[in-house]
Amino acid sequence: MKAEILAVGTELLMGQIANTNAQYISSRLPDAGIGVYYHDVVGDNPERLKQSLSLALSRSDVVILTGGLGPTRDDLTKETVAAVVNRKLVLDQDSLDIMEDFFKKRGRKMTHNNIKQAYLPEGCTIVRNSNGTAPGCIMEVNGKTIVMLPGPPSEMRPMFDETVMPYFLARAEYRLESRFLRIFGIGESAVEDMLLDLIDKQSNPTIAPYARDGEVTLRITAKYDKNSPEEDLLLPLENEIRRRLGDAVYSNDNRSLEQIASGLLIESKKTLSIAESCTGGLVSSKFTDMPGISQVFDRAIVTYSNHAKTEELGVKKETLDAFGAVSEQTAREMAEGVRLVSGTDIGISVTGIAGPGGGTEEKPVGLVYTALAHEQGTVVKKLDLWGSRSRIREVTCLHVFDMLRRYLLKIK
Amino acid sequence: MKAEILAVGTELLMGQIANTNAQYISSRLPDAGIGVYYHDVVGDNPERLKQSLSLALSRSDVVILTGGLGPTRDDLTKETVAAVVNRKLVLDQDSLDIMEDFFKKRGRKMTHNNIKQAYLPEGCTIVRNSNGTAPGCIMEVNGKTIVMLPGPPSEMRPMFDETVMPYFLARAEYRLESRFLRIFGIGESAVEDMLLDLIDKQSNPTIAPYARDGEVTLRITAKYDKNSPEEDLLLPLENEIRRRLGDAVYSNDNRSLEQIASGLLIESKKTLSIAESCTGGLVSSKFTDMPGISQVFDRAIVTYSNHAKTEELGVKKETLDAFGAVSEQTAREMAEGVRLVSGTDIGISVTGIAGPGGGTEEKPVGLVYTALAHEQGTVVKKLDLWGSRSRIREVTCLHVFDMLRRYLLKIK
Repeated sequence: MKAEILAVGTELLMGQIANTNAQYISSRLPDAGIGVYYHDVVGDNPERLKQSLSLALSRSDVVILTGGLGPTRDDLTKETVAAVVNRKLVLDQDSLDIMEDFFKKRGRKMTHNNIKQAYLPEGCTIVRNSNGTAPGCIMEVNGKTIVMLPGPPSEMRPMFDETVMPYFLARAEYRLESRFLRIFGIGESAVEDMLLDLIDKQSNPTIAPYARDGEVTLRITAKYDKNSPEEDLLLPLENEIRRRLGDAVYSNDNRSLEQIASGLLIESKKTLSIAESCTGGLVSSKFTDMPGISQVFDRAIVTYSNHAKTEELGVKKETLDAFGAVSEQTAREMAEGVRLVSGTDIGISVTGIAGPGGGTEEKPVGLVYTALAHEQGTVVKKLDLWGSRSRIREVTCLHVFDMLRRYLLKIK
Repeated sequence: MKAEILAVGTELLMGQIANTNAQYISSRLPDAGIGVYYHDVVGDNPERLKQSLSLALSRSDVVILTGGLGPTRDDLTKETVAAVVNRKLVLDQDSLDIMEDFFKKRGRKMTHNNIKQAYLPEGCTIVRNSNGTAPGCIMEVNGKTIVMLPGPPSEMRPMFDETVMPYFLARAEYRLESRFLRIFGIGESAVEDMLLDLIDKQSNPTIAPYARDGEVTLRITAKYDKNSPEEDLLLPLENEIRRRLGDAVYSNDNRSLEQIASGLLIESKKTLSIAESCTGGLVSSKFTDMPGISQVFDRAIVTYSNHAKTEELGVKKETLDAFGAVSEQTAREMAEGVRLVSGTDIGISVTGIAGPGGGTEEKPVGLVYTALAHEQGTVVKKLDLWGSRSRIREVTCLHVFDMLRRYLLKIK
């Protein structure tokens, strides 16, 4: 079954919001054996919507429309769809009652323009909306399934999960299962090189690599018959990939490197403190984005100035004078210093040149040192990064999380 | 001129990422008098890409493709576009040299599959990529403009800004100029209420309000003939809006609150230190995202544990015992403490409950205190925020930047 997601809304074409509805629906449909082949966006224009819908119905089995179900004049999705498939819109008294109740509960008066939201295509399955006024619907027309859902994600998502997805699951012929192998420390082309034969002979499961800033993700996808016995078609392929890439593969469930590293840390019960220079608190803010991290995270000290490095972390003035703030030696003393000051099991440090200014021939923008001090000693890593200030800071964080992850795996 | 944005990438159809490239490009093109009428997404499939491209070329003047320019086998955008418009791909030696240099500088070996990225359509304008390996291009074909850009936003955005946008601006028939008035401290419906008569009678310039987490932006847009005399149609409207909203309007050039606050700080030459608890380094990381901030920013101390607050900032144990870590008193002592410890002109602090756990009836999730200590005294602000952990942390940062901005304006 081929699906297409057609979003209606001028705010998308103006760039005011991203089409996260299409992303959400796309991530869910494959579980019901439905592949998404196209996303489209059109504005609040009935003529263009009509054309896009006709095209979608000609090439896809399932067309899911989002947006344009509201009370205002430019909300024209239902009217346009009804015209294209030649169905009448009829008043659904239940929808009207629910809507009136919705306004009453909130102590607001229902304005007249709301009533049109209770008109729905004849013979459709109604999709109730518990977070807003506009109901959605599912229609079967000439062997095609048309779904209409409102645009606000806070309304659309629960409606999709509670009604639309169960509707498709009950009718599924086969299902797809995907696993995301996330990789850090090997570039995209090198990953492909190491897996070339597997990629060449892929059929079921399939393999698709893609790169994001500083890391690579492999999506492996298997197709299952609905009535096939329980078996894991993905596991042998995952194992073979892990055998080749080693512990560069850090997760298989789309958890991020920071989630993996924080999870391992909480599990290990080791306490952590951080000393940051060029990342300016970014490493710490990512760690503290994880609920529960307060069990193991004690403090972070962002020392931007040299005298703060000396006062707060005990970095020796001689070290700064001899080697500079961006050096292996300073990184080491920062990590050891923050560990000592806080009395934690692990101390992590970052010092580098994030740019755009501040680089020299000897120490260019992108030169970063990270260190990890633990009970038995200290490891320091030198990074040569490139790109914007923001990219250098973000990729540095990935290296820090990877350094911690590898250390925690080793002592496990 | 009608534009269409055609994204290529199975990762979009699988819902792994949202199509933020289309959003970005859509938000910029209107300035060159180009309206965006359609977004489309297809997977890494040459047949469907061919069909979508043909449709786009039949209905739009400008087609911008993103994605599918990389080194791997499923990167097929250039090859497919070249076939549709009947142009040869030829080796661009400069692109190859730049790419070889890119790998050499990073001490990595260029694998053979990278070479195809240096093949570009005959007669195109090359769009250089300073943040990755794949160059993009602009082609004029039978009165239509086709642009190809890589998928990763960190590469696509600078390429679009530096080369594609100037290309269109130089050819624009009329131009739109937008100014973004950013507002903090007044809600969206209140802003609309205060400007109702202006919004009702708008024609040229137009006014569009929209709300993002915690703040409101007004986009005011004027349309100019290309040959019209120099005049600023936006200024009178901007002045009237400023008259009504006062210094809640914090920028008119889309600079963020953190950029404004950092700019004022650098200008004032006052030095700053920060003590953070629930934001865990986020305030500091946003400050240090600004190049040049090292002139005035000394250090940040992220004290997650109570004893770190006492050890690092001198918060009194009695204060913590009597009022708790999340209290006006603790916020005050944190700000005064970090100012004293670092010897800076200004000390800022944040302490609160970001959730999802940790709230009580008396001190619910979303209760946050921020304080600013300066030469003459200390101000403390209590915030009652709502939403997810991440939203509470982000909105807290806005309040901190606004607090600093208002203080710096006052002493200016």
